[in-house]
Amino acid sequence: MAMIPKGFLFSGVRCGLKNRRNDVGIILCEDSYPAAGIFTTNQFRASSIDFSRSVLEGRSLRAVIVNSGNANCATGEQGTRDTIRMAQLTSEAFNIEGAIAVASTGIIGQPLDMTKLAKGIAASPKKLGLDPKPFMEAILTTDLVEKWSSLAFGSQNVINPKNPGVEKSEASIYGVCKGSGMIAPNMATMLGFVITDLDLSHLNIQKLLKTACDKSFNRLTVDGDTSTNDMVLLIASGKSGKKPTFDEALDAITRVCVDLAKQIARDGEGATKLLEVRVTGTENPLLIARTIADSPLVKTAMFGCDPNWGRIIAAAGRAGVSLDVSIAKLNIIANGEEFLLFSNGTPTAFEPNRVSTALKAEHVIIDLCFDPAGDTETIYSCDFGYGYVRINAEYHT
Amino acid sequence: MAMIPKGFLFSGVRCGLKNRRNDVGIILCEDSYPAAGIFTTNQFRASSIDFSRSVLEGRSLRAVIVNSGNANCATGEQGTRDTIRMAQLTSEAFNIEGAIAVASTGIIGQPLDMTKLAKGIAASPKKLGLDPKPFMEAILTTDLVEKWSSLAFGSQNVINPKNPGVEKSEASIYGVCKGSGMIAPNMATMLGFVITDLDLSHLNIQKLLKTACDKSFNRLTVDGDTSTNDMVLLIASGKSGKKPTFDEALDAITRVCVDLAKQIARDGEGATKLLEVRVTGTENPLLIARTIADSPLVKTAMFGCDPNWGRIIAAAGRAGVSLDVSIAKLNIIANGEEFLLFSNGTPTAFEPNRVSTALKAEHVIIDLCFDPAGDTETIYSCDFGYGYVRINAEYHT
Repeated sequence: MAMIPKGFLFSGVRCGLKNRRNDVGIILCEDSYPAAGIFTTNQFRASSIDFSRSVLEGRSLRAVIVNSGNANCATGEQGTRDTIRMAQLTSEAFNIEGAIAVASTGIIGQPLDMTKLAKGIAASPKKLGLDPKPFMEAILTTDLVEKWSSLAFGSQNVINPKNPGVEKSEASIYGVCKGSGMIAPNMATMLGFVITDLDLSHLNIQKLLKTACDKSFNRLTVDGDTSTNDMVLLIASGKSGKKPTFDEALDAITRVCVDLAKQIARDGEGATKLLEVRVTGTENPLLIARTIADSPLVKTAMFGCDPNWGRIIAAAGRAGVSLDVSIAKLNIIANGEEFLLFSNGTPTAFEPNRVSTALKAEHVIIDLCFDPAGDTETIYSCDFGYGYVRINAEYHT
Repeated sequence: MAMIPKGFLFSGVRCGLKNRRNDVGIILCEDSYPAAGIFTTNQFRASSIDFSRSVLEGRSLRAVIVNSGNANCATGEQGTRDTIRMAQLTSEAFNIEGAIAVASTGIIGQPLDMTKLAKGIAASPKKLGLDPKPFMEAILTTDLVEKWSSLAFGSQNVINPKNPGVEKSEASIYGVCKGSGMIAPNMATMLGFVITDLDLSHLNIQKLLKTACDKSFNRLTVDGDTSTNDMVLLIASGKSGKKPTFDEALDAITRVCVDLAKQIARDGEGATKLLEVRVTGTENPLLIARTIADSPLVKTAMFGCDPNWGRIIAAAGRAGVSLDVSIAKLNIIANGEEFLLFSNGTPTAFEPNRVSTALKAEHVIIDLCFDPAGDTETIYSCDFGYGYVRINAEYHT
């Protein structure tokens, strides 16, 4: 069970935009709370992105309305009017004032069915409750699993679907997200909603969320594509009365966001495992990590459980970063074992079969070090197999 | 039949570095001729790259020796000595002086079997002849087809394996290349050798080759990975006595290189079709074209013959280039038909089934225009299907 921060209610209903599962979800704040948002940098954006960004200029939110099944993107003027209407209908249904953010995910280039959506919003107040599960279901598209993470403030250990313990806490952070499944006929929208009852009113929470996202969701790659509808929101009710420092809040929120990002990578399209690519040293370890994590050759090798150090080193070499291969050390960490595959410019005498067996694990770390004293940067990715091709080639628009 | 420029002889023999087909190929020039080379920018390079680059500082070549089956990369000091030895053995076998370039392609991280290779080189003089076919076979690795292209100087139309006519010519350009097949356990080395009997002694042929490569091989993407061993060489015998201007020579050599680049894309791993991505307008059409051409979502859609305009527009939108989607026009050209899929910010009312049928063609052009008055840039790519995963995941090192 997650620890749900005080001050928030949730609803999720099915209005028929998707074939199954809830498709309209609302997070209702008891009052207007400080909030921040991070939005896709794609030049081709859904109207919900521009709308919610402008709503957040007021730096607070009273509610969030999300629909799945239709991204309301490439839908012209009508799409913009529909986004605004979603916020208005939510305001009327719950009889609330204050800023309302809108997020949409699903098929693009098709008009939103506002008749269905209006019915769904109107039915939402009756479903309002403390359990976020109906909301969580309402934001999913082709995700195979629900993704949530929560943390008792002051704890180091996240609670999530694979580790569903309970911790007592004065204050907590709870995050839910969707992503990695393809949306017919389009791309993998990532939506993330992080709520907390920490009092962050004294902090720059936009900077807080941006910094946390840069270490988590912005370190995530399934196929290198950035969606038109990506959005992460943070809302802080302050109900716990706990006022952390910026660094304390950043640490806690980043832990939840990193955990969510890993869950998305693990549920990547057709993925069989989470790949964590760590690079240490050189003037741009992040760019090298990203190049390795995006390489189809590396990702297919990991799918095939093949300890193919050459592909990893070659991807590093083409990242556009000056580096000295003769001092590189490459380790693969999987299934509790660590294997040195390449050291000082030459391959080591490792046992391919043993490494291959370890690579069957659900979590594989590729650790490439050019200088142990340098900075370490991490990218979260997944392997690349037949499932990815099946999902993305066999679907027809 | 290709038109083979005067002044060159070829050999190809099998010494056992590969399981089948020739694996040692030599181009012998009748004399030392002006030459230029373009080399991989990967920071992790084979010793043949550094060796041949330094050989070409003299701006002429007497011969080129190529082996396939072993890339002689990540092989340390011994690898460097073996590269130098390959040049020496070639010099001895043919009793020639002058600069000799070395190229290698194949498995990486394994020492070259110099005993086999020395026998292969020693056997080469007896096989020397005017037919480049044995050489062409000797440079292949997992390529499915041989790739060559030739042009009669002054003609617009290349002669190649799909269009094997004969043209009379005073002077000609002939190019041969390999690439796109994965090399166990590693990456797709691209080797290209372009020879001509034009007299280019009055021109800056390094600049000529660089400019031609920038419009051809550097516009090519199979999976975005750049190999450790990539090399393109140009040698001009001058035997025709024909002295073109820089622009005439550039036009002819570029035609041959573009044709070779398309052949490589078409033979991409698991590819079923050549994708030509053209972008017109904006401040960086090349970057947008490259982003679309590298997108796994676009490439899988093309494999599935799915007219998925959303993925194309979304890839353009994330290229990091400022653009206005509301003026974009997206056409798909395939099978002799042109389809407008997206215009002025919204999808058109095209017939998906008709487009899907046309997309079964072996050559598909994606044409995205932001401003008809702007520059057009082109990238050559291929689709992405089960074959890619099979080739790259099921091979074990």
